[in-house]
Amino acid sequence: MPAPVEPVRRRLADGREILYFDERPGRPHDATDDRPLHPVQTDSQLRWDPLLEVWTVIAAHRQDRTYLPPADLCPLCPSRDGRQTEIPEPSYDVVVFENRFPSLAGHGDGLREPPAAEDPFAALSALGHGRCEVVVPTDDHEKTVGDLPTDRVRLLVDTWAQRTAELSGRGDTAAVGLFENRGEDVGVTLHHTHQQIYAYPFVPPVSRRLAQALTHHRGRTGDCLVCDRRRFEAAQRERVVVAGEAWTVFVPFAARWPYEVQVVPHRHVRGLPDLDDGERDELATLWGELFRRYDSLFDVPRLPTIAAWHQTAVAAEDGHMFGQVFTLQRDSGKLKYLAGSESAFGAWILDVAPERAAAALRAGTSA
Amino acid sequence: MPAPVEPVRRRLADGREILYFDERPGRPHDATDDRPLHPVQTDSQLRWDPLLEVWTVIAAHRQDRTYLPPADLCPLCPSRDGRQTEIPEPSYDVVVFENRFPSLAGHGDGLREPPAAEDPFAALSALGHGRCEVVVPTDDHEKTVGDLPTDRVRLLVDTWAQRTAELSGRGDTAAVGLFENRGEDVGVTLHHTHQQIYAYPFVPPVSRRLAQALTHHRGRTGDCLVCDRRRFEAAQRERVVVAGEAWTVFVPFAARWPYEVQVVPHRHVRGLPDLDDGERDELATLWGELFRRYDSLFDVPRLPTIAAWHQTAVAAEDGHMFGQVFTLQRDSGKLKYLAGSESAFGAWILDVAPERAAAALRAGTSA
Repeated sequence: MPAPVEPVRRRLADGREILYFDERPGRPHDATDDRPLHPVQTDSQLRWDPLLEVWTVIAAHRQDRTYLPPADLCPLCPSRDGRQTEIPEPSYDVVVFENRFPSLAGHGDGLREPPAAEDPFAALSALGHGRCEVVVPTDDHEKTVGDLPTDRVRLLVDTWAQRTAELSGRGDTAAVGLFENRGEDVGVTLHHTHQQIYAYPFVPPVSRRLAQALTHHRGRTGDCLVCDRRRFEAAQRERVVVAGEAWTVFVPFAARWPYEVQVVPHRHVRGLPDLDDGERDELATLWGELFRRYDSLFDVPRLPTIAAWHQTAVAAEDGHMFGQVFTLQRDSGKLKYLAGSESAFGAWILDVAPERAAAALRAGTSA
Repeated sequence: MPAPVEPVRRRLADGREILYFDERPGRPHDATDDRPLHPVQTDSQLRWDPLLEVWTVIAAHRQDRTYLPPADLCPLCPSRDGRQTEIPEPSYDVVVFENRFPSLAGHGDGLREPPAAEDPFAALSALGHGRCEVVVPTDDHEKTVGDLPTDRVRLLVDTWAQRTAELSGRGDTAAVGLFENRGEDVGVTLHHTHQQIYAYPFVPPVSRRLAQALTHHRGRTGDCLVCDRRRFEAAQRERVVVAGEAWTVFVPFAARWPYEVQVVPHRHVRGLPDLDDGERDELATLWGELFRRYDSLFDVPRLPTIAAWHQTAVAAEDGHMFGQVFTLQRDSGKLKYLAGSESAFGAWILDVAPERAAAALRAGTSA
């Protein structure tokens, strides 16, 4: 494993932490944040839903979060010409800071799950503790990840790995979720390219399902489900988009989302911090390329996409990380909506056959 | 229980079944469908997703389904003045017909779940069998459920009950899902008010989760979780929207969706066919009223909503039905999107506190 990247640590005017990750060490970070900001106040609650047996986050204070500001008021651009943003420096490489409108903030005791049998309805809420971070990989308002040089994407991978490792060590983190929403059609409220990192105080439902499936498969076969599936898709070939040395990118046989791919490391690794230098280098190359493939699918720049990294929960004994990317655009000018079958019953209906989606992503055009 | 309503059964030009449910018996249904329609062809597949341990429906043929036609080409309006629609009669009360673009069609052998241990990747697909029906509760293109007289909503409830009972008896139906999507913002492709009924060949993931939670609660307490939760919400009062004789409508303590309510019968009944006359009458009144409450929340007619009926799976020993309604509009002019946290990790973040949502729905205005 590469030595962990160490960021330069500063504070914003309201006490939130901001971390600078630089391509070359020694860059000065002297700019200060003089904005008259009130300290962040959150009133998030975690509430246990006994019907689905999951925690839900109630974060009513986020209703007033910044919503689609014009480019000249972008809070993720550098501070220049007397205008102060969330990032005090006039330029930067990769920056991470605590979200000013976090769904989860502060420290807590961790959560039991499911709640004690003898007390099914009382004490089923808790403060919404945890941490929400924003990762900004470029000071250029217009650039997407696909536009960045490979060195910058590599620094971004190192940043994700460092944040995963540090947040996993908080003591009250159950799992680290990392994702990028892109496009107004997926609900992005800020256009400037950014990812988000959530240090969840509970294991998110999908992560719990994945862990259960891994355990079931290990019990039946002795093998890792994610390893076995990657070998299965590599052997079948028709859904493979990129076959690398250390990674395979494929549309899963039972994809749920239009043009969904999974980005799977060949080595059985828990999470981003466990990736070695070779794996990070190859990922940096294929990750940028992957977004260029999405953008050429329908000739839509910044095609609405969601990207996520599924990593192993902090307390889990076993796990195999993978990335996931999909778009909500099922056809030219048509979006995939999660309506009754998906939202109410959890039964997914996919309009784009996985084999056609893979062929289109390989060719870089829609099928 | 009331005697089941018996529809008048006819066929459309391509062989699909159409059922007329009338407020008064004896109405003629002589109109024929002379459209030169090709028989419906579907190539749906069910594929097993081993990572989430769920079935996914791949229905690529639906890409070309009718998409937001203008009002004068509405396929759900009655056939008049030489223009033939999906409904041959010049007027109707409640009509049900097989969807021309079904996600699921035809008969099958039923599905095993999870697939056989010895064979984790082969034979994990099946024909997408089942049935998708469209329910049209009014021949008026402009009316929503909230505009219908109570007698018509009562006939609609009887229709849902009759369809649930008949589809449950197909032999290859695992569960019946009933839902109404409303508004382009939830992906509606036809404006004319309609519901959809899916006879699923598998138990949808959410229904399976609900059944598991019911079993867990029964094991811990001996009682029904849905009954206990209804009593809990009725005692707490602050999230109750409508307290009826046979039904309580409340925003659940751990709601996932903006302005989500659950509509729970006091009696421990499995599904819509088990409701007695009194329960159906009260439901007819409160169901229309509920949609009028949603429409006055933001003064938006046809506020985008999803409504669903969660009924007990065909093979399940125990279950307690309930309705669910929510909107995707979290604030004036702002939608709730399912982005990274929800779509990738299944961790829901709610922007509207359940207590405020309930107060707003009681008052009929947003909080």
